[in-house]
Amino acid sequence: MSKILVFGHKNPDTDAITSAISFSYLKNQLGEKTEAVALGELNEETAYALNYFNVAAPRVVETVANETDTVYLVDHNEAQQSVADIAEVEVASVVDHHRIANFETTNPLYYRAEPVGCTNTIILKLFKENDVVIPKNIAGLMLSAIVSDTLLFKSPTCTSEDEAAAKELAELAEVDLESYGLDLLKAGTNMGDKSAEE
Amino acid sequence: MSKILVFGHKNPDTDAITSAISFSYLKNQLGEKTEAVALGELNEETAYALNYFNVAAPRVVETVANETDTVYLVDHNEAQQSVADIAEVEVASVVDHHRIANFETTNPLYYRAEPVGCTNTIILKLFKENDVVIPKNIAGLMLSAIVSDTLLFKSPTCTSEDEAAAKELAELAEVDLESYGLDLLKAGTNMGDKSAEE
Ligand SMILES: [Mn+2]
Ligand SMILES: [Mn+2]
Ligand SMILES: [Mn+2]
Ligand SMILES: [Mn+2]
Repeated sequence: MSKILVFGHKNPDTDAITSAISFSYLKNQLGEKTEAVALGELNEETAYALNYFNVAAPRVVETVANETDTVYLVDHNEAQQSVADIAEVEVASVVDHHRIANFETTNPLYYRAEPVGCTNTIILKLFKENDVVIPKNIAGLMLSAIVSDTLLFKSPTCTSEDEAAAKELAELAEVDLESYGLDLLKAGTNMGDKSAEE
Repeated sequence: MSKILVFGHKNPDTDAITSAISFSYLKNQLGEKTEAVALGELNEETAYALNYFNVAAPRVVETVANETDTVYLVDHNEAQQSVADIAEVEVASVVDHHRIANFETTNPLYYRAEPVGCTNTIILKLFKENDVVIPKNIAGLMLSAIVSDTLLFKSPTCTSEDEAAAKELAELAEVDLESYGLDLLKAGTNMGDKSAEE
């Protein structure tokens, strides 16, 4: 069987890229064969995080049905934010923190959405529920997503769960939350390409 | 604030009724104010289960917007299976094991779907994740739903998780799984009103 592809939304932000990486890592630890891919190039903030934690950028895909029949969505569900040929594959799992719209499946699926500030806050729970250890570099990426989506806990969508998750991940990543967080946000704003999507 | 109403689909089966009861119980233990209601009268199988475990039938509602602005859906998500005025209220949580279709929200929500045989198999996980003890009568209702949805583990939708959940719930409910299960299914078929919905 071909690999299940895992990806976030188009015009990817740090959560879209890193939640694909963290969810794919979790699934592979659980015995599945998945690959994190991206629906666009990294922005400067995400590139900073991947470089800092020494993780390779996921390859960019334009379509998926040419290589798999099953996909997992992270950080989005709406068809217009997804891959162009999303209608041609089966969405077997979604992990997301947005409203649900323009989303429909033929079969039952795994869908995990919570009204929190970041997809990686939910993925942290999934690691715990499945008793999978989070390596330092994956924890750093997950932390980066929470910092990015919540603007270091200042966004109105930020919850106490996001803040607690970030603190826990900063310890695992062995970074100082405040100083790493500010450096990360600065890396994004420096280049002026941070999307207003979230 | 008015109570949040929790309900399963129209033409309710045992899972629709009892997952409303079990999810509402869980939420109330967690400090929320919710009430399980029903979108139709009990079938004979469900009446047997409620009577056996001495739990009152949820009241039947035709509309919900006249008494609340927020609802939790269990065992369904599609608008045509839901209450007539579903578009007038906010769906803040869904726990379900069906495909997703004709479902859309304005805001982020809690959505928990898994491809298992019964909503109550998922709700059992939620009790554990939240460290809430399941009383004997609620466990009996949850068990009844799994027996009903999986036809005592014979349906093609039944998973090993459903079977394990049923065994665990039968112990909590202090009933013999096989003999109670057969009596329950018999109570439904006797009256010839078991819906083919699931
Ligand atoms: Mn995003
Ligand atoms: Mn996000
Ligand atoms: Mn049902
Ligand atoms: Mn069901």
